[in-house]
Amino acid sequence: MSDVTRDATTITGRTRLVAVLGDPVEQVRAPALLNRQFAAEGVDIVVIPLHVRPDDLETVVRGLQRTANLVGLLVTVPHKVDALRLADVRSEAAELAGGTNALRRLEDGSWHADNFDGAGFCAGLIEAGHQPHGTRAVLVGAGGAGAAIAPALLAAGVGHLVLHDTDEARMKEVAGRMDLHWPGRVGTATSPGLRSADMVVNATPLGMRPGDALPFDPAELRPGALVADIIMKPRETRLLRRAAELGHPVLHGEPMLRHQMDLYRSYFGAAR
Amino acid sequence: MSDVTRDATTITGRTRLVAVLGDPVEQVRAPALLNRQFAAEGVDIVVIPLHVRPDDLETVVRGLQRTANLVGLLVTVPHKVDALRLADVRSEAAELAGGTNALRRLEDGSWHADNFDGAGFCAGLIEAGHQPHGTRAVLVGAGGAGAAIAPALLAAGVGHLVLHDTDEARMKEVAGRMDLHWPGRVGTATSPGLRSADMVVNATPLGMRPGDALPFDPAELRPGALVADIIMKPRETRLLRRAAELGHPVLHGEPMLRHQMDLYRSYFGAAR
Repeated sequence: MSDVTRDATTITGRTRLVAVLGDPVEQVRAPALLNRQFAAEGVDIVVIPLHVRPDDLETVVRGLQRTANLVGLLVTVPHKVDALRLADVRSEAAELAGGTNALRRLEDGSWHADNFDGAGFCAGLIEAGHQPHGTRAVLVGAGGAGAAIAPALLAAGVGHLVLHDTDEARMKEVAGRMDLHWPGRVGTATSPGLRSADMVVNATPLGMRPGDALPFDPAELRPGALVADIIMKPRETRLLRRAAELGHPVLHGEPMLRHQMDLYRSYFGAAR
Repeated sequence: MSDVTRDATTITGRTRLVAVLGDPVEQVRAPALLNRQFAAEGVDIVVIPLHVRPDDLETVVRGLQRTANLVGLLVTVPHKVDALRLADVRSEAAELAGGTNALRRLEDGSWHADNFDGAGFCAGLIEAGHQPHGTRAVLVGAGGAGAAIAPALLAAGVGHLVLHDTDEARMKEVAGRMDLHWPGRVGTATSPGLRSADMVVNATPLGMRPGDALPFDPAELRPGALVADIIMKPRETRLLRRAAELGHPVLHGEPMLRHQMDLYRSYFGAAR
């Protein structure tokens, strides 16, 4: 990544926009990360945060969709599911995830919804040298991120995927959606069942706060199994520290974020 | 003005927003000018352009009003009149001008509309040493800018104001509104009638393009009468050049813009 920066005084009447919608929105990193990249590439798009409460999402999005120089939206918690119905067209990744984190205007003026959580995770996995093809994976957490990572792992060729979530209804709903597309390759487990796994992914928020319990115990894993965490902050979660101590290869949350940013950049670079 | 700049990578999730609404919007200078000033003052607000077509204005504004980190709106052509009805409260300047160029969220969540065209013009006038009090002024052009400058001149104490516009209905409507507030101090003229004026203001767009006719002929003025133009580009309009050649004091468009920016900055700095 270049060190070129962009002076906000270079925002002119010709600058195009991408808004990041969240509640809260203070924590979002996309403005800082993407603005630096767009500036380095000479792309006159600026990413701005927009604090939108759930009850206001539709009104705000309908308004933004009628502006002419907003090329797209990034969507974070808690809007990923609701924003999906505000698009006219949905990618398969978004449909399968049941949510969207990026929308853009198409050439005909209609709005397209996509989801890059899963693709970002898989790109980071492969970059780190872990080929998902034919592996047995366990995914802990079937919330928004888990529901997006599950289809991406299956599309990348994971041989068998076990979903685990303490919310049984949610777990079964996501597994059922996967089973329709990849019959026979998806299971669920009320306890993670880690012994035969080649890779275990934490897609729960456990590990963000210092006192959090482990989402699962890496001591149960067979030697050589990969432990991945999608948590970005802290970089070194208790889970990853414990897994590393036990000699397991680990994958941090950072590569997923970085690849997502690359995917967003291409997505909005192609927007009208 | 400080030379401190702001790196757009400093736009974070905590940054608050002001959107400039126009159609077109490419020409607006507020983002560049205000972003530099906010950056110099350490105010974490960023001004962005939003291209909004007239049919979409209400939908877009209603959406923006429901966001939580947008502190206000700047409004330019052709939205100044229509945006006024989208506010809950209106300043006297906005009511008298019949349009708004700045709206902000009040502490109770309602939206306030103001208009700084007139105050910006008068501040520039006084700064240049021209006291409007007791003078006879002629205002050529009763469109959006003229309708905002007229009440500001009267509020600043102009003794008698003559309005001139080739659109007679518009001229009479603005003069009628002024006459209700300042009875007996406002007249209209189908030809400018410059002979007794102390000051003549061009508030028409004539002079923006090279081939434009003069809005009035400064040769008709008595010696020492001030000729003011609100056109920013070119800085030296044909009108001002001709007036200066004839020995008249002149006032450029720049001070009005600069004072408006100061007024916007205070207005949004106080926004919730």
